[in-house]
Amino acid sequence: MSRPGPRQGEGALDGARLTLWAPDGLAEVRPGDDLAALVGDLLASDADRSGDRLAEGDVVVVTSKIVSKAEGRVVRAADREQAITDETVRVVAVRERPGGLPPLRIVENRLGLVMAAAGVDASNTPEGTVLLLPEDPDTSARALRAAWRARFGIDRLGVVVTDTAGRPWREGLTDIAVGAAGLAVVDDLRGGTDAHGRPLSVTVAAVADEIAAASELVRGKASGRAVAVARGVGRYVLAGHGPQGDGAGARSLVRGGPDDLFREGSAEAYARGLADGHDLPR
Amino acid sequence: MSRPGPRQGEGALDGARLTLWAPDGLAEVRPGDDLAALVGDLLASDADRSGDRLAEGDVVVVTSKIVSKAEGRVVRAADREQAITDETVRVVAVRERPGGLPPLRIVENRLGLVMAAAGVDASNTPEGTVLLLPEDPDTSARALRAAWRARFGIDRLGVVVTDTAGRPWREGLTDIAVGAAGLAVVDDLRGGTDAHGRPLSVTVAAVADEIAAASELVRGKASGRAVAVARGVGRYVLAGHGPQGDGAGARSLVRGGPDDLFREGSAEAYARGLADGHDLPR
Repeated sequence: MSRPGPRQGEGALDGARLTLWAPDGLAEVRPGDDLAALVGDLLASDADRSGDRLAEGDVVVVTSKIVSKAEGRVVRAADREQAITDETVRVVAVRERPGGLPPLRIVENRLGLVMAAAGVDASNTPEGTVLLLPEDPDTSARALRAAWRARFGIDRLGVVVTDTAGRPWREGLTDIAVGAAGLAVVDDLRGGTDAHGRPLSVTVAAVADEIAAASELVRGKASGRAVAVARGVGRYVLAGHGPQGDGAGARSLVRGGPDDLFREGSAEAYARGLADGHDLPR
Repeated sequence: MSRPGPRQGEGALDGARLTLWAPDGLAEVRPGDDLAALVGDLLASDADRSGDRLAEGDVVVVTSKIVSKAEGRVVRAADREQAITDETVRVVAVRERPGGLPPLRIVENRLGLVMAAAGVDASNTPEGTVLLLPEDPDTSARALRAAWRARFGIDRLGVVVTDTAGRPWREGLTDIAVGAAGLAVVDDLRGGTDAHGRPLSVTVAAVADEIAAASELVRGKASGRAVAVARGVGRYVLAGHGPQGDGAGARSLVRGGPDDLFREGSAEAYARGLADGHDLPR
């Protein structure tokens, strides 16, 4: 795999300064649209306006919403609960809600992501519709990266596809990376040392998620801006085309299986234990 | 409470552009140090070097590590497991680990935070010691804010105290806000509408956590930089002194009680159910 890292002229500041901006003016994305072209046009006109051209080491961040829209991942709103069911691989936890609302379902979806409503989205889409997550956001990220590398003549370019998710034990939502290309999605410092020379044995920073979270601060939910650029994380950005340049993708950030201590919600696990315990011979 | 928001001259770009930088050169922080003065000196000398003076609407981000060091929250390393036990209010989940390592404990600590090892930290501290989290990071944030408002003559100033934490279902760690002052810690859009005029009924962005995550990208674990400044989120920054200007703090980001669907790890909840089920009369 190509080594990520800053290049001459970029190194002194890379890592110590980060700038993100969110260009405005992307037209409504519709099924079948060439998303790479639309966003490329946005970036180009933004560059004309501001003088800030896409550069080596930049990361383009797009919401999964516009990827889904372009890919036609739209279903009728009346089918929202059915859409969630269809996207559900495994139910993790369910909470009843007042006021006639359907229960909140936290589930594992096709992408291995554990999210409320399987990631099905009813905001920022035309009335009467909901959006599913992209079929394969890593693949989408790779296609976007290839198109923009060619269009802008950039070798080292990262792409992150974001979605918004809640977290256990914390109020509020943050954006995370559900797709990525051209980026080391984690900063794996295992085997490295800290400033005191002690081993950083468990420090694996989820760089792609941090970039996603930072991008939400410039995009904002109410404004509907769907694209951001992050400049200053070039040390994580990969060069070259194909698998080596694309990297492992955001799928590598999904944790499951025996390492998942929260595979079931507490109430669900308790209930299952209760049933099994009742069946145990005395 | 003072209304957060951009002021004249700042509004056009606020929200669409975000810059973070991490000044270098903070001396090792020791128990009893005046942290506000040390970090203030760092910011002042960085401003002399770069011309970038702290300005209205800026947010200063500091790691909980340096707050803990200044507050003397240091214990001997041999007592790490005991320190974790002492900081534990409630055990959430435990995972055995190979190689003679003590089990990984995910627990709720005094601050209501659910974290591995109760937030006890063995990296970036002198050999033979571990660090506890600050006694009350919101209080620490408020004190820092008051000192810097006075020193730099700034009315609208935010402060975030960060710590690094893992997440269920995702690899890698991100930084979150464990203390905050002068900041709306969530961007509560409930009651607002999206670009289509549809109600944003569940969208509450955890702004303070997003700022914390973004700051990690410029601080970096291996470099040991403990301070960052975020410019461009002024719309979330509060004005004035005292409780109105300080805001609710990061404690308001802690979710617990009946809304916590993952109060126990799956294995723990299952085992408890199994025991209770075994005791049920037939």
